[in-house]
Amino acid sequence: MPPRLQSGAGNVRILVCASCRAAGADPDAPRPGAVLAAGLAQALDTACEASVTVETVECLSVCKRPCTVALAGEGRWTYVYGDLDPKDGVETLLTFARQYRDTHDGIVPWRERADAIRKGVVARIPPIAIASPT
Amino acid sequence: MPPRLQSGAGNVRILVCASCRAAGADPDAPRPGAVLAAGLAQALDTACEASVTVETVECLSVCKRPCTVALAGEGRWTYVYGDLDPKDGVETLLTFARQYRDTHDGIVPWRERADAIRKGVVARIPPIAIASPT
Repeated sequence: MPPRLQSGAGNVRILVCASCRAAGADPDAPRPGAVLAAGLAQALDTACEASVTVETVECLSVCKRPCTVALAGEGRWTYVYGDLDPKDGVETLLTFARQYRDTHDGIVPWRERADAIRKGVVARIPPIAIASPT
Repeated sequence: MPPRLQSGAGNVRILVCASCRAAGADPDAPRPGAVLAAGLAQALDTACEASVTVETVECLSVCKRPCTVALAGEGRWTYVYGDLDPKDGVETLLTFARQYRDTHDGIVPWRERADAIRKGVVARIPPIAIASPT
């Protein structure tokens, strides 16, 4: 599992799958998810934006749609997106993460979502509290 | 949003999307997810199985692959599955939920997963702690 770029201190977390690679890609080339995560980390650092954090994670099981990411936040729906470009995806994701952060439940109105976000949705999971085993 | 069938007192939760319907289906027919959730609730009730709970949820954004469910549990990866049959899916899911419950991280070995589970995977999300806003 690749090292984490930044731990989840912020209240919105972008989890970038660093396992998958595009079909036919050079196996020794950097994984597109690692490129995307590094771009996001740099942009967040430049913006001194602590309310959004980015980290790489092991396989999100969406192997045919790199780059794949999950967005999660306290009390919010968790979203999974695929088909993100490792370069252009940085700005798209940062804009969306800010929109997501500024909602109370993670649901950004459809008309306000970028095209790549609309088309890239893979799944979403409601905000759930998991009971501890008794 | 349909009523919840059972609240999440158990340590493994099956969240069944009750929004989507099969292409070309009668719009007035019961949604396949509602049928699956009712079958799961009945089977769990019959088995007096409190460690697994089932509830219906609003759209999981996997609209083209009904039935769609999410499995979640304390400290475990959350998994999303699609293409489950509303009838046959009951036993498949219950077996898998028990396997999932008996792991510490939600990762059931590949060779032990039923075919419908192997083929139906949509995405997975790591066990994450979300920091409260500060």
